[in-house]
Amino acid sequence: METQIGIIGLGLIGGSLAISLRNKVDESKIVSAFYSDEESLIALERGLVDEVLSFEDVCKTSNIIILATPVELIQQLLPKVLDLVSENTVVTDVGSTKKSICDSIAYHPKRKQFVAAHPIAGTENNGPQAAIDGLFNGKLNILCDVEKSDKNAVNKVKELFESVGMHTTFRDADEHDRQLAYVSHLSHASSFMLGLTVLDMERNEENIFNLAGSGFESTVRLAKSSPEMWSSIFAQNKTNILTALRSYIENLQAFYQLIESDNTSKTKELMIAANEVRRVLKN
Amino acid sequence: METQIGIIGLGLIGGSLAISLRNKVDESKIVSAFYSDEESLIALERGLVDEVLSFEDVCKTSNIIILATPVELIQQLLPKVLDLVSENTVVTDVGSTKKSICDSIAYHPKRKQFVAAHPIAGTENNGPQAAIDGLFNGKLNILCDVEKSDKNAVNKVKELFESVGMHTTFRDADEHDRQLAYVSHLSHASSFMLGLTVLDMERNEENIFNLAGSGFESTVRLAKSSPEMWSSIFAQNKTNILTALRSYIENLQAFYQLIESDNTSKTKELMIAANEVRRVLKN
Repeated sequence: METQIGIIGLGLIGGSLAISLRNKVDESKIVSAFYSDEESLIALERGLVDEVLSFEDVCKTSNIIILATPVELIQQLLPKVLDLVSENTVVTDVGSTKKSICDSIAYHPKRKQFVAAHPIAGTENNGPQAAIDGLFNGKLNILCDVEKSDKNAVNKVKELFESVGMHTTFRDADEHDRQLAYVSHLSHASSFMLGLTVLDMERNEENIFNLAGSGFESTVRLAKSSPEMWSSIFAQNKTNILTALRSYIENLQAFYQLIESDNTSKTKELMIAANEVRRVLKN
Repeated sequence: METQIGIIGLGLIGGSLAISLRNKVDESKIVSAFYSDEESLIALERGLVDEVLSFEDVCKTSNIIILATPVELIQQLLPKVLDLVSENTVVTDVGSTKKSICDSIAYHPKRKQFVAAHPIAGTENNGPQAAIDGLFNGKLNILCDVEKSDKNAVNKVKELFESVGMHTTFRDADEHDRQLAYVSHLSHASSFMLGLTVLDMERNEENIFNLAGSGFESTVRLAKSSPEMWSSIFAQNKTNILTALRSYIENLQAFYQLIESDNTSKTKELMIAANEVRRVLKN
């Protein structure tokens, strides 16, 4: 029997899922999708999907639906998707925030058909033209609040992401958002503002970027990320991100003051403490 | 005729120069070096150098001397090196700050024999065990205040670094320090404090690092750098680094306030402006 997977949103993540699923899934399946006209066109041209259907038709005819738009749009679309799907359809998403998405359908009669997911994968590029096969290979997928979903639905979604090479872990939506604020969202804010600071300086310093080495490239890489996607994430995970940003700014201010007061030994101490990241980084 | 190159300090940069020079330089040359006993032992074991001489002997017998210790030590050693060398010896360094190093020998009678250099290369690892061949290949070497050096000395140093694959650019020492504060030193401060912020949070959030993706790894990679080396750089380039840090903190505070006041359109605007880094990054 053919399973139809409907992907709503064919950016980097949705598009990469489409390619990866087509290459990995053994039964023959139609991957259909709906989003902006432009994305759909590129997706069809690149062969990411078999067919582009209307939003309503995707919801009504697919066995599995994956929401892969920016998070605020996921939050808006999810209740409508659940309204439209049949009772055997499983719905999941790939949003980088989870609490507000789960809240949006907390009392929906079809709540159990939804499984909140966050596959941690990406590059700083976006759109269907950036979609690549193998993006999810060896990466981690976080399933949230699974006790609120039907057990079979959880298994289906778990297997779907595992079929493209992912491992699975579980978190409460609250916990997910709190932790991601630190290990992902803060990195993006830090990188965006670092890029901006040096670009500001460029007005006074000709050819400054000629002197940039690989260290600068590494810390500023995320400043290339999609403002559309990230303004949505910052809005949805506001409280946690503000807490993380506040701690970060406080640490920078403390560091500033130590350098200003020539307190070399304490400056060194803070950096020795920061070296501890070696323990948690793979590379 | 044999040319003896003396490298003082065999950490990542000094050690990598030793390997790379041995593999590239066509005449037979002895690379000798002096620094800590421990480093010397590893350097001899790894075959980085032919011989380990005393500081005095390195200075008296080498044709070219490269200072490759942390920058504060370069500043302390440089006048002593110039005191000891013969009038045909050329002295250079690899320090990440240039103004205070140049100031330390501004009125030295052998000033013209010194050529201030900053080869922009490195990894987040350090010590002679981290030394690798090819580290400088395709990278940029900055020569500073060359009008204060003998022309032949400048040519010798330029060729030395070009022999291991580097391109050459020129800056005033002032300009170098101002620009590097933005495109290198600030990235390190940002990364050290980012690492510290998330490590602080780890005390409350079990397994938080399991959720970290490649974005976090990228922004926090530099937090693995040597506190010894970086406390020295922050001290030596204090004024410029404080200016850069202040701008960065101000941008972060502005970003914080925009998120706090739900000003999504302005948040997005700042990120669109930051996206401009695409223009200046190679990858």
